[in-house]
Amino acid sequence: MDLEQLRRFAATAPFNEWLALEVISAENGHVEIRLNWRDEFAQYQGYLHAGIIGGLLDTAAGFAVLSLGRKAMVSQFSANMMRPAIGDYFIAKGEVIRAGRTQIFARAELYSARDGEEKLSAAGGALLVPISG
Amino acid sequence: MDLEQLRRFAATAPFNEWLALEVISAENGHVEIRLNWRDEFAQYQGYLHAGIIGGLLDTAAGFAVLSLGRKAMVSQFSANMMRPAIGDYFIAKGEVIRAGRTQIFARAELYSARDGEEKLSAAGGALLVPISG
Amino acid sequence: MDLEQLRRFAATAPFNEWLALEVISAENGHVEIRLNWRDEFAQYQGYLHAGIIGGLLDTAAGFAVLSLGRKAMVSQFSANMMRPAIGDYFIAKGEVIRAGRTQIFARAELYSARDGEEKLSAAGGALLVPISG
Amino acid sequence: MDLEQLRRFAATAPFNEWLALEVISAENGHVEIRLNWRDEFAQYQGYLHAGIIGGLLDTAAGFAVLSLGRKAMVSQFSANMMRPAIGDYFIAKGEVIRAGRTQIFARAELYSARDGEEKLSAAGGALLVPISG
Repeated sequence: MDLEQLRRFAATAPFNEWLALEVISAENGHVEIRLNWRDEFAQYQGYLHAGIIGGLLDTAAGFAVLSLGRKAMVSQFSANMMRPAIGDYFIAKGEVIRAGRTQIFARAELYSARDGEEKLSAAGGALLVPISG
Repeated sequence: MDLEQLRRFAATAPFNEWLALEVISAENGHVEIRLNWRDEFAQYQGYLHAGIIGGLLDTAAGFAVLSLGRKAMVSQFSANMMRPAIGDYFIAKGEVIRAGRTQIFARAELYSARDGEEKLSAAGGALLVPISG
Repeated sequence: MDLEQLRRFAATAPFNEWLALEVISAENGHVEIRLNWRDEFAQYQGYLHAGIIGGLLDTAAGFAVLSLGRKAMVSQFSANMMRPAIGDYFIAKGEVIRAGRTQIFARAELYSARDGEEKLSAAGGALLVPISG
Repeated sequence: MDLEQLRRFAATAPFNEWLALEVISAENGHVEIRLNWRDEFAQYQGYLHAGIIGGLLDTAAGFAVLSLGRKAMVSQFSANMMRPAIGDYFIAKGEVIRAGRTQIFARAELYSARDGEEKLSAAGGALLVPISG
């Protein structure tokens, strides 16, 4: 999928729509997505909720696979939370590391942007299994 | 924290409120939380979005720690997606495996309930670092 | 594979032979393996080396799959190190959580035994992909 | 620790000595270690045993931390096995991603070298907790 196809695809997921996720770029196994902060995304301290952090990393990894023209389901997912995710907006970068026939490995990083500075907040790896259709 | 305290605590997180997460039980390192299905939780195939799956596992693990009277931040998180999460409601069960001084290990399982039957959909492990306050 | 078949299979792996790994029990997706301490297994502090901890968890998970009569390769592996692994011997318990057609989920725990007491030292999860042959 | 200090340190771990692990380079959070193939490292198909793969990734991550002058224990470890590890020798590259006060995140990659060509076989992430001494 190219950028326009991926944007249309992303919009078919109701949770992505609620998040108002934007696909910034998508090319050959590399994607960037962006999420603008809204107060309803917070956990109890006011940081981005771990569920949303995980969702962004997972989505960036899945979209990176789609940008290669393949479709897959995440079967394993791992995330390291390095710094509290506080920001005006967040950028998740996904990258396919190895696209095999029966499994695809991808990784993703989440940056929190505040006052024009982006800081690495979390990083994760995903293992996806190709599906047809 | 006992069940009532944990419910009040859970309600301080705006994202949990949006989910309408319910704390079912909480005692001595074991908790159960419940999420009723809403269409806006879906990924593109209509299953529960991976971000919400991750959020439920993570929250169940974190609440299990709180039920021991300790406070901690998730620093690493891993999830296995075993079956598509489709259901009328979902139950996440969290359990503390080892509560050390500098790190706490917990795990969580997510069950999808449909037509009165609960099936294991995902399972995860979390490593948390105690915080004060 | 039953216990005798699994023991013969285990003996075909040179590294397992060097470890002198013993298969204690194997039945229907559950196995136990044992390793007796030798000084050459140590990391710099004298504890069991993380490579051997990982190898035991991974092997226990793989053998649990074999005990179901299936063959698979580990494609993802995660381990939590909960306590220093110090002991006269070590027991790793592997268990299949879900055996699907295209992927199999297993988990394993490592216990360190000293002076007759077994303590949980590490726990892990593995995702395996079935292979033929 | 600089390269010479790290080599002396590595030699204090009996399992590393058995492996005959070599530290190739170490500087400012980045290290490379090398393992020459020996038949006793094999799993049942003749590939490098997952325990040794995990041990190399884990050791590369730990040494990367030491190269920053810090000491830490691995508390969580995750590995993706991307290709069978078959080679004349193996190179593991470790890198510190974030060195915080209470936790340190590192990652590592394992390359299998055969006939002069290096291929990525596995990649992992580690979370380490600083220790004194």
